[in-house]
Amino acid sequence: MRIVGYMMALMLASPALAEAQTPWRAIAPENLLVIDTDYGRTVIELNPEFAPNHVQRIRDLAAMEFYDGLTFYRVIEGFVAQAGRGEGEGAPVLPEAFPALLNENDRASAGLEFAHLGSPDLYAKISGHVNGFAAAQDPDSGRSWLQHCPGSMAMARDNDPDTGDAEFYIVLGPGTRYLDRNLTVFGRVIDGMEFIQKLNRGVRAIDSGVIADVARRDVIHSFKIAADMPEATRPAYEVMPTPSEEFTAHKTSKRVRNEEFFYRHPPEVVEACTVVAPGRRAVK
Amino acid sequence: MRIVGYMMALMLASPALAEAQTPWRAIAPENLLVIDTDYGRTVIELNPEFAPNHVQRIRDLAAMEFYDGLTFYRVIEGFVAQAGRGEGEGAPVLPEAFPALLNENDRASAGLEFAHLGSPDLYAKISGHVNGFAAAQDPDSGRSWLQHCPGSMAMARDNDPDTGDAEFYIVLGPGTRYLDRNLTVFGRVIDGMEFIQKLNRGVRAIDSGVIADVARRDVIHSFKIAADMPEATRPAYEVMPTPSEEFTAHKTSKRVRNEEFFYRHPPEVVEACTVVAPGRRAVK
Repeated sequence: MRIVGYMMALMLASPALAEAQTPWRAIAPENLLVIDTDYGRTVIELNPEFAPNHVQRIRDLAAMEFYDGLTFYRVIEGFVAQAGRGEGEGAPVLPEAFPALLNENDRASAGLEFAHLGSPDLYAKISGHVNGFAAAQDPDSGRSWLQHCPGSMAMARDNDPDTGDAEFYIVLGPGTRYLDRNLTVFGRVIDGMEFIQKLNRGVRAIDSGVIADVARRDVIHSFKIAADMPEATRPAYEVMPTPSEEFTAHKTSKRVRNEEFFYRHPPEVVEACTVVAPGRRAVK
Repeated sequence: MRIVGYMMALMLASPALAEAQTPWRAIAPENLLVIDTDYGRTVIELNPEFAPNHVQRIRDLAAMEFYDGLTFYRVIEGFVAQAGRGEGEGAPVLPEAFPALLNENDRASAGLEFAHLGSPDLYAKISGHVNGFAAAQDPDSGRSWLQHCPGSMAMARDNDPDTGDAEFYIVLGPGTRYLDRNLTVFGRVIDGMEFIQKLNRGVRAIDSGVIADVARRDVIHSFKIAADMPEATRPAYEVMPTPSEEFTAHKTSKRVRNEEFFYRHPPEVVEACTVVAPGRRAVK
């Protein structure tokens, strides 16, 4: 009985989503990135609405198998897992056809379907979601950008903001919003984030988290766009639409906790990063 | 050269701490919990200043090896890793000597040395740190409490707030502050959080994250208080003191980003959870 009590109580802390009311949005196979490591498969939605050139770069490099066999060589607990150019043995040379990219760390707000969060945000005047991604807006400049959240995928760079070309990172923890509008977020993990969390870590204080022992660096066995995989075997995913009644209910369930379990009513706030639109495998 | 550029640029995103100015606080071996799993050793500081009875319960159960051989049977990516009573095969019976505990989810602010964060917080009027732990205060009621952060260790319970007894969870991700003052936080991970992140996950939508396949549940090989380990082999840790000039510099380095890398100046905010006082191995 007691165990059931625990389970029920904790289930109340994560209320079931409302029944689906609108069809979920299918992710185009050109925007679905599939990364396989020793631990399992991680699926990422790329975002050409905010970062078209970065997404095309990832598509091009994936098609030539640039990342296959590289490692996550810089991994810092609670910060980022980084790969793309390697460090030490086997650092790949990027072909000349792939020059540095102009940053795409923000864009005009016009034309975006922005679902307002409805809660204050510490880092931006307006916070919310665009097609499921946590995003923010500055009403004065009319610019919008993707937020750095756990699971965000973005391009590393030198001090010059227009120097990213192939090196990427996946955000592991909170507290990276200070990178917003400084680096270009171009995707987010839809499934398999737990396999990114399993990557071997370096030590931040030692060589900025680069893993000295090459054998401990986890290998990217495959880095492919779903559109380049055989249609019969490639994964298919869909995402809860934003805005939608279902998404509004999802956010409210995280913001307003009226269950008996909460004998003290929590502040009715929530952050965009922690209520990103859920994704799921699509029935093909 | 290019790789060096990347590394330098990314190191700037994580500036080195200021030189130590005050001695770090040694963690008493009675407050140091050591958990060994297949992935490595995780070290946790217990907090009797906020939760004396919960800490004593953990000490007592560790001394009788209650947790040794149990599993993290409910693990949800970005939420919590939970253990203590198991689910299904081998759920242990808690001896009668260990009744449910009265909650210790807040305490009087009087007598606490509170280091104010100096940034706004979404969930509490006053946010900051007490002896390195992220904490918050309500000036009206004169109460203080520990925040739910990634790495926080807390006691699970039934709907009644005074029903926790042995089942604990470690927080994996952000977005759990709504649990503050509803459940009792009694410790935080000082080292080895990456091994908790490697724990096999369940699926939240299936049985609330309980891992159905018992073989996939990661085992707690050892769960010991350092004071109960042989003095020659037990670990020793120390924590940056709060408040201190060094900790103030640490927070400022995370709040104010004046490095060339940030061509757009980020908002000067930070959250208590992401600037908890660093811990390190002590030289014995």
